[in-house]
Amino acid sequence: MYRTDKFREECGVMGVYGHPEAAKIAYLGLYALQHRGQESAGIVCSDGESLRIFKSMGQISEIFTEPVLQSLPGRLAIGHTRYSTAGDTTLVNAQPLMVDCNKGALALGHNGNLVNAIGIRARLERKGSIFQTNSDTEVLLHLLAESRCRSVPEALSEALRQVEGAYSIVMLTRDRLIAVRDPRGFRPLSMGRLDGGVVFASETCAFDLIGAAYDSEVEPGEMVVVDGAGVTRMRFTEPQPPAFCVFEHVYFSRPDSVVFGRPVHQSREMLGRLLARESPVEADIVVPVPDSGVSAALGYSIESGIPLKFGLIRNHYVGRTFIEPRQSIRDFGVKLKLNPVRTILEGQRVVLVDDSIVRGTTSRKIVRMIREAGAREVHMRVSCPPTISSCFYGVDTPTERELIAARHTIDEIRAHVNADSLAYLSLEGLRTAVADTDRRYCNACYTGKYPTELVNIELESGLAKRR
Amino acid sequence: MYRTDKFREECGVMGVYGHPEAAKIAYLGLYALQHRGQESAGIVCSDGESLRIFKSMGQISEIFTEPVLQSLPGRLAIGHTRYSTAGDTTLVNAQPLMVDCNKGALALGHNGNLVNAIGIRARLERKGSIFQTNSDTEVLLHLLAESRCRSVPEALSEALRQVEGAYSIVMLTRDRLIAVRDPRGFRPLSMGRLDGGVVFASETCAFDLIGAAYDSEVEPGEMVVVDGAGVTRMRFTEPQPPAFCVFEHVYFSRPDSVVFGRPVHQSREMLGRLLARESPVEADIVVPVPDSGVSAALGYSIESGIPLKFGLIRNHYVGRTFIEPRQSIRDFGVKLKLNPVRTILEGQRVVLVDDSIVRGTTSRKIVRMIREAGAREVHMRVSCPPTISSCFYGVDTPTERELIAARHTIDEIRAHVNADSLAYLSLEGLRTAVADTDRRYCNACYTGKYPTELVNIELESGLAKRR
Amino acid sequence: MYRTDKFREECGVMGVYGHPEAAKIAYLGLYALQHRGQESAGIVCSDGESLRIFKSMGQISEIFTEPVLQSLPGRLAIGHTRYSTAGDTTLVNAQPLMVDCNKGALALGHNGNLVNAIGIRARLERKGSIFQTNSDTEVLLHLLAESRCRSVPEALSEALRQVEGAYSIVMLTRDRLIAVRDPRGFRPLSMGRLDGGVVFASETCAFDLIGAAYDSEVEPGEMVVVDGAGVTRMRFTEPQPPAFCVFEHVYFSRPDSVVFGRPVHQSREMLGRLLARESPVEADIVVPVPDSGVSAALGYSIESGIPLKFGLIRNHYVGRTFIEPRQSIRDFGVKLKLNPVRTILEGQRVVLVDDSIVRGTTSRKIVRMIREAGAREVHMRVSCPPTISSCFYGVDTPTERELIAARHTIDEIRAHVNADSLAYLSLEGLRTAVADTDRRYCNACYTGKYPTELVNIELESGLAKRR
Amino acid sequence: MYRTDKFREECGVMGVYGHPEAAKIAYLGLYALQHRGQESAGIVCSDGESLRIFKSMGQISEIFTEPVLQSLPGRLAIGHTRYSTAGDTTLVNAQPLMVDCNKGALALGHNGNLVNAIGIRARLERKGSIFQTNSDTEVLLHLLAESRCRSVPEALSEALRQVEGAYSIVMLTRDRLIAVRDPRGFRPLSMGRLDGGVVFASETCAFDLIGAAYDSEVEPGEMVVVDGAGVTRMRFTEPQPPAFCVFEHVYFSRPDSVVFGRPVHQSREMLGRLLARESPVEADIVVPVPDSGVSAALGYSIESGIPLKFGLIRNHYVGRTFIEPRQSIRDFGVKLKLNPVRTILEGQRVVLVDDSIVRGTTSRKIVRMIREAGAREVHMRVSCPPTISSCFYGVDTPTERELIAARHTIDEIRAHVNADSLAYLSLEGLRTAVADTDRRYCNACYTGKYPTELVNIELESGLAKRR
Repeated sequence: MYRTDKFREECGVMGVYGHPEAAKIAYLGLYALQHRGQESAGIVCSDGESLRIFKSMGQISEIFTEPVLQSLPGRLAIGHTRYSTAGDTTLVNAQPLMVDCNKGALALGHNGNLVNAIGIRARLERKGSIFQTNSDTEVLLHLLAESRCRSVPEALSEALRQVEGAYSIVMLTRDRLIAVRDPRGFRPLSMGRLDGGVVFASETCAFDLIGAAYDSEVEPGEMVVVDGAGVTRMRFTEPQPPAFCVFEHVYFSRPDSVVFGRPVHQSREMLGRLLARESPVEADIVVPVPDSGVSAALGYSIESGIPLKFGLIRNHYVGRTFIEPRQSIRDFGVKLKLNPVRTILEGQRVVLVDDSIVRGTTSRKIVRMIREAGAREVHMRVSCPPTISSCFYGVDTPTERELIAARHTIDEIRAHVNADSLAYLSLEGLRTAVADTDRRYCNACYTGKYPTELVNIELESGLAKRR
Repeated sequence: MYRTDKFREECGVMGVYGHPEAAKIAYLGLYALQHRGQESAGIVCSDGESLRIFKSMGQISEIFTEPVLQSLPGRLAIGHTRYSTAGDTTLVNAQPLMVDCNKGALALGHNGNLVNAIGIRARLERKGSIFQTNSDTEVLLHLLAESRCRSVPEALSEALRQVEGAYSIVMLTRDRLIAVRDPRGFRPLSMGRLDGGVVFASETCAFDLIGAAYDSEVEPGEMVVVDGAGVTRMRFTEPQPPAFCVFEHVYFSRPDSVVFGRPVHQSREMLGRLLARESPVEADIVVPVPDSGVSAALGYSIESGIPLKFGLIRNHYVGRTFIEPRQSIRDFGVKLKLNPVRTILEGQRVVLVDDSIVRGTTSRKIVRMIREAGAREVHMRVSCPPTISSCFYGVDTPTERELIAARHTIDEIRAHVNADSLAYLSLEGLRTAVADTDRRYCNACYTGKYPTELVNIELESGLAKRR
Repeated sequence: MYRTDKFREECGVMGVYGHPEAAKIAYLGLYALQHRGQESAGIVCSDGESLRIFKSMGQISEIFTEPVLQSLPGRLAIGHTRYSTAGDTTLVNAQPLMVDCNKGALALGHNGNLVNAIGIRARLERKGSIFQTNSDTEVLLHLLAESRCRSVPEALSEALRQVEGAYSIVMLTRDRLIAVRDPRGFRPLSMGRLDGGVVFASETCAFDLIGAAYDSEVEPGEMVVVDGAGVTRMRFTEPQPPAFCVFEHVYFSRPDSVVFGRPVHQSREMLGRLLARESPVEADIVVPVPDSGVSAALGYSIESGIPLKFGLIRNHYVGRTFIEPRQSIRDFGVKLKLNPVRTILEGQRVVLVDDSIVRGTTSRKIVRMIREAGAREVHMRVSCPPTISSCFYGVDTPTERELIAARHTIDEIRAHVNADSLAYLSLEGLRTAVADTDRRYCNACYTGKYPTELVNIELESGLAKRR
Repeated sequence: MYRTDKFREECGVMGVYGHPEAAKIAYLGLYALQHRGQESAGIVCSDGESLRIFKSMGQISEIFTEPVLQSLPGRLAIGHTRYSTAGDTTLVNAQPLMVDCNKGALALGHNGNLVNAIGIRARLERKGSIFQTNSDTEVLLHLLAESRCRSVPEALSEALRQVEGAYSIVMLTRDRLIAVRDPRGFRPLSMGRLDGGVVFASETCAFDLIGAAYDSEVEPGEMVVVDGAGVTRMRFTEPQPPAFCVFEHVYFSRPDSVVFGRPVHQSREMLGRLLARESPVEADIVVPVPDSGVSAALGYSIESGIPLKFGLIRNHYVGRTFIEPRQSIRDFGVKLKLNPVRTILEGQRVVLVDDSIVRGTTSRKIVRMIREAGAREVHMRVSCPPTISSCFYGVDTPTERELIAARHTIDEIRAHVNADSLAYLSLEGLRTAVADTDRRYCNACYTGKYPTELVNIELESGLAKRR
């Protein structure tokens, strides 16, 4: 597979309570969340008596056929879609995880990453626990089973108080649906209403497809329990300073979602506008790197008055694998996805707007393609600050060694991608664009300052590698 | 499958002469032409001795695996990708067709439609010919075999002089590649150069991917023969008034292609600009129906000064089939592909720009979704004239009974789709947008005036149904 | 795929008239006939109005799923299952063939081989016919279309009078089912009755599965037409001396079939009995090569009084492909299918009974395995005469060059397979076993005397290669 | 799927130490063991550094493709093939199980059933363990992790001393292969030598295919550890009276295997001989129910002098699913697999030999088919005693309610299957046939006397259901 040089979100979650076809609703929700993970997916449902699971490698529409959904009856369901990282493509790590324990049968889908999972896992293994996945999520299930608390919500609370990091979780028992968000609220999780029932989703675009009405955010540090007694909302831990992932607004989330209470498209257009204000350039056209760069490019165009042109066309029929001729075609992988339009670019001074430069390899190829299509100048504008640090909170980032901005100045990067000029949005601009007036966002990937202490300590002591 | 309410192109063709991996190049070309047909595809290659074929239902990247391409050796190849129309999903009609006859082994891929195929087929059947496909293309092969001319180019010429209609053809023999375009040039066909060899493609975007240089159009009424003697260009019939399909510019072709010598994106932006001039409206935002309406919407926005907003988001992870809950979701099929963005649309007066209204069903659903997302007014603007007639030249159109504009006034259509106002681009505007100063385009779908006599005669006599 | 060193039948055919689920009945019939061809299959049905077809590479149970069979409505159907020979694995040659011509829509399934197809095809091509398959069956369809006779049965008769060779045919039109057997009756074809309807099958085992009652043979030179007027039986040509394929009894047909009016198992046991009488040997146990050698081995055991032992066990879970270790395992391909039982063979003098030695390679490996398992002596007994000539009548035989018995004496073969003794059944014994008192069987593969003149003439003149 | 009315073995295991392509050898071994379980399979390998796993639903030859086996490098491997019981078709229960724990990474494949797993699981759950499968095997891994012993062999020994029941186990660590058989030796497990390495397999037929030499049984209560120090054999518990599963000889194992030190084919022929001595009948032919009844039928024929005839033919091309006509065919499911041969059966007095009657449903259909094919009398002979009790040691038996012999007299069964006479082999005969002179076999399914106390106690107290 030709991968674009982008960060990859690792998960999307769905929860459904009180719908006669809960698994189908979960499936549709996952379908809308597919940009958050397209390599495996699973659904667990409950008919009030027992849990049933189906998970598989592949895309939602291939995995969940009519017979599969028929085999998942009941009014409660949770769903999960994820990327698998390299070397970890076995189905065994797909979620939701489903187990039997002293709290009964339960299933859990997790978006995020626990930063102290390794330490807890070591303790649990010493104690005699066995682990069947590589997933930090399994640690949580062990802690839950370990708890002396009788009720699942209490036991889960106790377990969660032992972990640190990012988690938006949906959990299913025989007769309960539980949704949880970590105390800093790294990853999004919203609650909605559908035909008298309750639904949860990583992004509100899932509600739109299933026809659910948005109700509220699951708040940082909040646990929402839905069962026969209705909806119970509670805090399971002390409040902590919020740390919403700003990259959800910059790149991950769909523009039609409302994330952390703010419309994503609004942030994105504003990123482009502020970028134009901060780093104007004399040019003839603004060209986005589609699809993710379009909103920012539109903002740049509006603010600068330079006309927007679709000078790169994206091919949407890209399959999983491609066969390249032996005498290989230059920039083949990028060309399969993007084609420069000579009749737009020829002789022009181009502002090329993208939402990130990770390794720099793809940007370099795109700039070259644009030049070969006749552009006179290429001014690259990136709608966020330089990415200098790895994420420990659920985003699949390259190691710092691979992050071009971690080891190079902006001018070196400019030279590498061979642009006439290069500018990134400032951190201040980013905060303004997402309306982060009260410092509720995590910007660690741009600053190296992590909101959880463990990460900072481990990084300093060399225990944690900057992945 | 949820089909959008669009016309569907039926074919794309590729030809490759003189490349060590001709089949791989044809495969990549088809991949770039996939918007012209995604339901079956095939490649025939020649290693100078014998022809080999592989065709299958499905998408390019699924059909042509490495082992399949390994089984297609040689320096010559043709490829074809197509839609199959309903009830005609058997592989037997997939192209290229490959036959043995007194001219030797040959294969043919055809984009277009022969309007007198039925009559010729009847004559051939009376004479004793057997037909194994429903395709008009098979008629051509019979005529070719029937010809007394010895050489394939001569025999093909004789055959082509007996047929009427639209055809852009690539033909392969053991040692020759032939490309032909009908005398009116309905469908596009371009020639390019690649590493000392020659390539043909329905659209130039295929050249971009394989790294070929555009050479020229295959001219209307021209046959280009590529063999050991080089490239021979000849006319096989009397010149006729050209009739380029205008809908290639309005909708079919990729915006990054140059079609009939004109960049498609340029026509499309101009369609939007002229639409804005002809039918202005007081509004807050211009919203395209993605992806095909984006260029025209951009033009409308530029011309009108009303800001462009992506108020409809397209989901690109749509699979072939979807499972709907029993208690069905309103506008489910459209919702799977398009999601309205409430935070953009709420309270706004919206100019909704699309490139066609065929049956009106999808437009009605889109307008409803936009209103439900809070739009105050919806002004629909269509970047071409009302479609009132079926196409007989290779576009899969509904019957006239189904074409809403064939039986309704614009105001009735407006009422049906429930827009506050509705305007189409004028025919004059359309001609201006494609720079049709000397009447070289076919506008039959907007005028009912067909450029080939047979169609007009048969329609008048009731022999031909307006499909 | 590891192929056993056996001749391969090329086809099985089914016909169904007057059953509400004709396609399902054809499918079940094909399923019972699968030993006659397992690489592709097809069914054509008619609902009285139009023909529908489905064919595919693969095995019956994979090809015909419920949705596929649902798409094949109507009370008439024909089916075909076949091997494809090497280099001919494209679906295009799969049967039934279905065409449109001046006789209307028709479909045809053919078991056998036309020996003069090449000459007729050359004439037809000169005349302007095009051929889309490599199949001799397509020739027949051209001749049928060429005929001036109005009715399909008459036209088919005229066509058949022009061809020579082996054919058992089922043909379908909109409202008729036709079954034909060539004048010498090379290949079997039986007629049965099912719930007031009529069925045809290559072997009667197909009737057993669908619960049909055997009615009669389709006689050599007979055409049976089933339509609204009932069953009409007619002769389409002059009678010729019969030439039933004796190898149907020796190897091809299922032992539970009645073929050419004689139970196959009866012939097979008799082959073994006569082999024991002709070539006795002092030994401890009789061991069959399963599955096909079992009946003859049983006969040998009964006649000789030497006990039968299953000293070779066949693995029935063999898939299509196998992965061999790099350091390859001796006789791997044979071992996957057959395992010698040391505790039976050790120290024993073994009579090994098989039904043929084609190239000798497999027999050599089997004898080696048996010796390695401890057998003291291996006496090979073959239940038919040495195979010295290729078949031109529908059996996929190796060329004469590859037939070990065509170029070697029995003692040389014995030495090659490393048996202590080797004996074949005599031709006289073979005739006795199949009760061929009046010379109705073709023994050409054992004698080189072909029952059709053309083959003998061409072989003498060197025109035909002994394949 | 149409299931025959047979008991089903649940597992086969393979272990390989010291072969450069250990996974391929494991794959081939599993292929030979496929009769022990065909619904899922898995292999875990080790290259000395880390374990890798691949498991999937399906048959061996479909699951293990070349790329899959390439992804399983190393000189150590274990493999497992199994049936999944109804309602338990999720991959999660497929084996080997692979976990991380305080003993490192390890994987385990298990053939058998632990009778006290439920109790231990309850204790472990109370203690806080989580369970991800329904498999009793997971219990063993928890006990292993719980052990304070440092080395894996010691910890495994400690774990095994806590469980009761049937287990033949292969276990893999980074650098060790361990094979274990329970103290009573219910299920078979053999050790062999291959090219300087060591292999283990449930049956010796696996050794034959891979070319390994049989070394010895893994003895009841023995643990064999293979690592860099060579082969270490030890006892992990006190000796107990052996209880070899007699049904391995009656039905499960392949006839070419040596099981519990005795050739299976020898037992099976002797079963038939003794059956003939105990229950002779005046008849014309002996007909086996293929394939499993053939050996016993041969024995019956030899002893009685009544000739053996293959009056039922088995179709080996049976796929997974079959589509039945709406107007269903009588005995369809059985007919798909077995066809009676009228020309053998007509007018005959038939001795029908099978190796078991479980529910009686299939036997009833077979007898009916044989009568409809013209048999004058049908005398059924079963080569083991009546099955009256469920198995708790790894065989998938119906509940006692479904076992026809548990609730009916032999004469009632005879009436149900509509045979003219019915006889079972006596328990004494069974013991003689397997040479069980010193009571080493478990006959619980025929006697209801279970060799492990827990089962007897629970059955008496009603705690255990006779499944």
